[in-house]
Parts: sequence; C-alpha cells; structure tokens
Amino acid sequence: MTRVLLASRNAKKLAELRRILAAERVEGIEIVGLDDVPEFPEAPETGATFEENALAKARDAVAATGLPAIADDSGIAIDALNGMPGVLSARWSGGHGADEANLHLVLAQLGDVPDDRRGGGFVCAIALVRPDGTETTLRADWRGVITREPSGTNGFGYDPIFRPDGHDRTSAELSPAEKDAISHRGQALRLLLPHLAALA
Amino acid sequence: MTRVLLASRNAKKLAELRRILAAERVEGIEIVGLDDVPEFPEAPETGATFEENALAKARDAVAATGLPAIADDSGIAIDALNGMPGVLSARWSGGHGADEANLHLVLAQLGDVPDDRRGGGFVCAIALVRPDGTETTLRADWRGVITREPSGTNGFGYDPIFRPDGHDRTSAELSPAEKDAISHRGQALRLLLPHLAALA
Repeated sequence: MTRVLLASRNAKKLAELRRILAAERVEGIEIVGLDDVPEFPEAPETGATFEENALAKARDAVAATGLPAIADDSGIAIDALNGMPGVLSARWSGGHGADEANLHLVLAQLGDVPDDRRGGGFVCAIALVRPDGTETTLRADWRGVITREPSGTNGFGYDPIFRPDGHDRTSAELSPAEKDAISHRGQALRLLLPHLAALA
Repeated sequence: MTRVLLASRNAKKLAELRRILAAERVEGIEIVGLDDVPEFPEAPETGATFEENALAKARDAVAATGLPAIADDSGIAIDALNGMPGVLSARWSGGHGADEANLHLVLAQLGDVPDDRRGGGFVCAIALVRPDGTETTLRADWRGVITREPSGTNGFGYDPIFRPDGHDRTSAELSPAEKDAISHRGQALRLLLPHLAALA
C-alpha cells in the first residue's frame, strides 16, 4: 500500500478523493491528510497562478513528510473581471473565507454587466509532487454564467451565484453527487487518477 | 470659432482641457460642457473597454447636439488583478464614486501580493466623434506601482495608492500641475490636440 499525502486540512476534500478512488477502483493507494502531520507549516498562497499555489503546497508537503503529495488550488475566473477573482477568490472582499461578502461583491461589480457578458468558470489546479522531485500539474475548468442573485445552500464559496452551462440550477442547488460528477474538482481529480495509480 | 462639446459634467475636466488648449496655443476651438446641454441623456457605462465607453458617450453627445464631441473614460489597471478594476474602477467596491472604499478594497486584495508584482497603470481613453460620423479614439497609459497604504490628498480615485514610475510620491502627493504634465489624462489630451486643431 503506497501512502500519498493530500496537503489539505479539509475533511470534505479528503473524503471526496477517497470516494473517487474507490469508485474508479484505483487500488494500492492510501490517502492520508494533513491532520496526520501535526507540525506541517502552512505557507501563504501568494502565487500568481492556481498551479503555482498547488505546487508550492505539494512541495512543502513532500519536504515535510517524504511522502508523495497532492495539493490543489481552486477559484472562480469571471470573464468580465478578466479572469479574476482567480487566485484571490478566497479573499476577494479583503478578508479570508468570507464567502457571503465575496459573492455579494462580485454581484455588485457585475451589476451593470449585461447577460451576454456574464460568463465564467470554476478552475481547479492539482499538483502531484513525488519524493524523487518529479512533478505533475493539471487543470480543469467548469464553465457557466454568473447569476444576478444567490440561490441554493449546498457547496460553498461562489456556488450560489454560478450556474453551470447545460443546467438551470446554480451549483449550490446541485446535490453533492451531481456536483462531484461534473465539477472542476471532480474533473481534475479524475485527470489525476492515472498518475496516482502509477504510484501503487 | 468651432464649438466642440466635452461630454462631461466635471468642471475640473473642462477647465483642464481649456488650460491645455491655451498652453499649447490651439486656436479657433471653443470647448463647451454638458451643463450647456440641459436635456442630455447620461447613458450607463456598460462597455467592456475604456474605448467603448468613451465612444458611446461621445456618440450620444453628437446625436443630442450636432456638435463635434469629446468624451473620455479612465481607470486603473492593476497587473496582479489581470488589468482590473479597469472599466469597473469607479464601482469596484460595489457602489459608485466611493473612492475610499474602492482603494481600500484594492489594498486588501493585494495584501499578500509581493512588491515585485504590484505594477499597474492609470489608463485614459478619449473618443472624438464628428458630426459627419467619423470617429477617432486614442489611449494613454501612466505606469507605476500600487503602494501598501494611501498617502496624499490631491487628486481623486486611486491617486493616493498609485506611485508613478520615476517618482517617490503617490499621484495624490503631486501638485495638479505636476500631475497634468505626466498623467494618463494629460497625455491623452495632448494626443488629441492635433485632431482638435484640425476642426478649427
């Protein structure tokens, strides 16, 4: 059994990755979380791209543990904001983790932006760094439009104002299973699977 | 004497343009402001670019008055925000004209952005639309860096957090004459002069 570290303290992310590995019958890999690495230093996410942030976290995790490590960085890229909030998604309104403030700021900024220019997408970058120093990064996009008001209570972040293409509900109105199947994170994790399987 | 309409209710902009015309000895042109056109409809600035907004205002002004018309649109484009706030500069924090809120939001968004990635520039686009339908647009940039705290009381908007390249003060610490000589608006107005002179 090869142990692989997911460089995150988010229990939902850990559960999601284990669920996908099981569903796709990837065997021989045990995913451990950062809670098993109490002294892990959390570096600030100051990269200019999602990939840089994911790589930095995964490299730190390998250096601290010697295990192969996975890390991700995600956000929403809105066309009328030239791809921002981007890497600043979690702190768009100034503080960290203020989901409500962030999404209401986006709605206000887009107040005068007409319907045909409200496109955007969630983006997820994942980095896999191996103890031998080889690195893999991959990215997935989930396109849709920014609504004019929040709707739905599932998910987190910008889910209540993002309506994925091909759907008539926001991603906060999708069930967790529906979202996993099509989301940026779900897609990126599936792209990662062959690389993980190769570690077994 | 050819009358040219500056499609703005901003008395400072009117005075600035008249001052530059006088200093550059452009003769035969009389600049009138929107206050002389009481029924003028103010269209919302919903364009995706500074040029679109300036053109829309100038076209409306020509349609309403039959005079040649000038309009401008300006803002700040910050590298670490992919060129935003851009056309949303005046409403970045959600409301209109909330200079303090806008600049403090930018400082918060750039809180973790290191010094070597804090570049940006003021941008000014000017459109000149003639009654025969011919149109000229031009643009000037004023490059510098975004500081970590506001300083200075001159100017408006983002001036207190913008330090122009080659200066050790923010643009809110420059005198109005110093700013006119090098700013995005000053540069753009000078680019406009030959086109204005040709109307005389």
